[in-house]
Amino acid sequence: MEREYVEQIADREDSFSQWYLDVVLRAELADYAPVRGCMVFRPYGYRIWELAQADLDRRFKETGVQNAYFPLLIPESIFKKEAEHIEGFAPEVAWVTHAGQEQLAERYLVRPTSETIIGTMYAKWIQSYRDLPVLINQWCSVMRWERRTVPFLRTTEFLWQEGHTAHRDEADARERTMMMLEVYRAFLEDFLAIPVVPGRKTPNEKFAGAVDTYSVEALMGNGRALQAATSHYLGDGFARVLGIDFLDADGQRKYVHMTSFGLSWRVIGALIMVHGDDRGLVLPPSVAPYQVVIVPIAPEAVRDQVLGEARRLADGLGGVRVHLDDRPEYTPGWKFNEWELRGVPIRLELGPRDLEAGQAVLVRRDDGRRRPVPLAQVAETVQRELAAMQGDLYRRAARFREENTHEAAGVDQLEAILQDRRGFIYAGWCGDGACELAVKERTGATIRCLPLDAPAPSGNCLHCGRPAQHRALFARAY
Amino acid sequence: MEREYVEQIADREDSFSQWYLDVVLRAELADYAPVRGCMVFRPYGYRIWELAQADLDRRFKETGVQNAYFPLLIPESIFKKEAEHIEGFAPEVAWVTHAGQEQLAERYLVRPTSETIIGTMYAKWIQSYRDLPVLINQWCSVMRWERRTVPFLRTTEFLWQEGHTAHRDEADARERTMMMLEVYRAFLEDFLAIPVVPGRKTPNEKFAGAVDTYSVEALMGNGRALQAATSHYLGDGFARVLGIDFLDADGQRKYVHMTSFGLSWRVIGALIMVHGDDRGLVLPPSVAPYQVVIVPIAPEAVRDQVLGEARRLADGLGGVRVHLDDRPEYTPGWKFNEWELRGVPIRLELGPRDLEAGQAVLVRRDDGRRRPVPLAQVAETVQRELAAMQGDLYRRAARFREENTHEAAGVDQLEAILQDRRGFIYAGWCGDGACELAVKERTGATIRCLPLDAPAPSGNCLHCGRPAQHRALFARAY
Repeated sequence: MEREYVEQIADREDSFSQWYLDVVLRAELADYAPVRGCMVFRPYGYRIWELAQADLDRRFKETGVQNAYFPLLIPESIFKKEAEHIEGFAPEVAWVTHAGQEQLAERYLVRPTSETIIGTMYAKWIQSYRDLPVLINQWCSVMRWERRTVPFLRTTEFLWQEGHTAHRDEADARERTMMMLEVYRAFLEDFLAIPVVPGRKTPNEKFAGAVDTYSVEALMGNGRALQAATSHYLGDGFARVLGIDFLDADGQRKYVHMTSFGLSWRVIGALIMVHGDDRGLVLPPSVAPYQVVIVPIAPEAVRDQVLGEARRLADGLGGVRVHLDDRPEYTPGWKFNEWELRGVPIRLELGPRDLEAGQAVLVRRDDGRRRPVPLAQVAETVQRELAAMQGDLYRRAARFREENTHEAAGVDQLEAILQDRRGFIYAGWCGDGACELAVKERTGATIRCLPLDAPAPSGNCLHCGRPAQHRALFARAY
Repeated sequence: MEREYVEQIADREDSFSQWYLDVVLRAELADYAPVRGCMVFRPYGYRIWELAQADLDRRFKETGVQNAYFPLLIPESIFKKEAEHIEGFAPEVAWVTHAGQEQLAERYLVRPTSETIIGTMYAKWIQSYRDLPVLINQWCSVMRWERRTVPFLRTTEFLWQEGHTAHRDEADARERTMMMLEVYRAFLEDFLAIPVVPGRKTPNEKFAGAVDTYSVEALMGNGRALQAATSHYLGDGFARVLGIDFLDADGQRKYVHMTSFGLSWRVIGALIMVHGDDRGLVLPPSVAPYQVVIVPIAPEAVRDQVLGEARRLADGLGGVRVHLDDRPEYTPGWKFNEWELRGVPIRLELGPRDLEAGQAVLVRRDDGRRRPVPLAQVAETVQRELAAMQGDLYRRAARFREENTHEAAGVDQLEAILQDRRGFIYAGWCGDGACELAVKERTGATIRCLPLDAPAPSGNCLHCGRPAQHRALFARAY
């Protein structure tokens, strides 16, 4: 059968970024929109998001978080209350200035994030320590004006969730910050099969208005890092400027301590770049819109017979998301390519000779091996192979990360590694933001995080040579 | 036990609209936001929306509709392409004119509805008859600037779903229009227990840009009508101005025929106004965040024993959304009021004397009757009563509608009915928009729809006396 991979998508080794765009567009995950910096999230891609969303949402709810919805527009006067916050976001916000024919008395900004508007409501709702904690999340779109668009990675509007919690004291808020970081870690590793490094951001890299920002960092197939989610301890800064206080059991009025945490459709980009290969997308079974596609090989003479058996096969796969591609206008070979490009975990082929032999041929997307399976054992084999593939994808990604994780004693060595093969690079750091910025300027690499599980630092700062205070994780990042 | 309903919410007979607002705010369904015309959808209310959303979304998917996401902002030049459409929406759109410090070369409007931006993408995606039909829905927020806010009923920003489909010909598009109207009817009646009248809108009342608009109309507890959802046949008007054409099997290029259909968070308002009573919200079990609340009556001496049994009771209610209210700081009487106000379908009371008798007391929200139930039979009784209550609420609403549906032979009679008792009023109509507007000006009543199942019209137009062409459904509406 004809198999022409080469013309469909760019070579992954040759041009990773073109390969990425080709996969996004050809697999119909997203498309460019006639709105600067924006993209359209197409049904096949959106379905991946829905499946991911459902799983993450369930994990949130298990920790007591409830969903709600707050306004899209934030009055300028409210957004301005937190000084660092407005300074960080002002250059990239979209302003609503008119409604109908009328110029508005006060401008509104389209939310780039919702700390201020949600905090304003918390000030009204929270009166007593009995009202705490407040644990709310919202799924919504936010807007940050961008010059360049890369689908899922850099868009003016993006879909995300933002959690916002208020607590009685710092300890409770910090516990929640770390709890949500762990929720993200488990979701990314167990559900999306993406290994991550949880850690704390340096002051240079933290969220505008946060005391501490934590993130989970993943390594993409081209050796660049991607921040997959963040969890912030906000202290009582927002509470003070927004007036979110409460009467504690000791009769004192106190400010709440807050957190926020977010994950966006960037993770779809991460799925592509972590698992994808030369033939296109490779989806972990957990988030595959179709976990199994059945491709009948049905010459005209035996068409009814083959399609009948293919339908029986589909009906027998209870609890599995299965799609029977019975379109007569495309050849089986074309369909193989198409569903490989779209990352479907398992393909079942069924032709006249298979029928005679009482079997189907099972092909896993990640290894491409052809496995004949007796028809009576297909359901059970599919279940087993889906579970195996989920684990194998994680292990393959973890192995790739291991092979692309390095140590650097100094900036020269770090630069050499980056030129040669990229990846995660551990190095000692003195804790001085000036050293961090100097390394960034020279090499383009930033401190992705100070990993939580790093051993005590030894040796010296890669830049200034003073004793290292941290073992930092450097990389070039999206 | 102390029961003070009166102070919590306004009298429903006396002031229905104040009662409505009190229920919205006190049951924590929503709150006013510091953004003109906007509201905050609080967790308890949002959970109702999530449950409704999941059910409606499943119904959509069963008809082949897939979800996607399109940009929030629409360039002015694209929105202007359909003349009727821009004329209808221009007075109420919000304009984004600046990003950061920069004035934009072209203004964007925050979507009030997405026909134009989605159609622009369809023009790119649809080439051949093989690409049809395209069946896409999006869950999102839209914005239409409003002067006055009524939570859920009239807000500047609101959450909704908007479906947009493209078809090979008129017949297929019209079939889809009616199919989605039926999906809404079944969802509203079977899931929300709200009886509706499906019908066609008059030309005066149809959507800006549609050929035909259909709606499902419900009757609220104060005798006013509420349009619960709409389904539009758009013809090929949008296709012509946006260039959505395809190569048909006969080798001809043709324009697609389109539909759109939408339902918003208004249905939360409908739930309140159809099922609510003097004590507050009454939720159909299908959409109740908690279907059962367990209130232990636990004096200090027997507290551990009662709470232990209450927990066992909760654990035994598999598949039911149950909440154990074990807060020590509130009295059982206070909790009874609170959960009645919030509309929880079933309350289970459990006190020391119940324990001795090996029973719990089950109270249904809709009839208030106290039913002692042996502990071993609670799970089964709860299941039965939840199912019964769902049906009873529907029948009660249908009976109310029947009792408040009238006939009017002329405008005088219609006006008298409206002054006296409101409700749905059937009357003959000649089909002339001038008669319709004259009736509206004099009585405030509009033609809600021309019901699909109406018998052939007889008699004369209520206004001009010419022979009636339609049996129209009049009402004052939200």
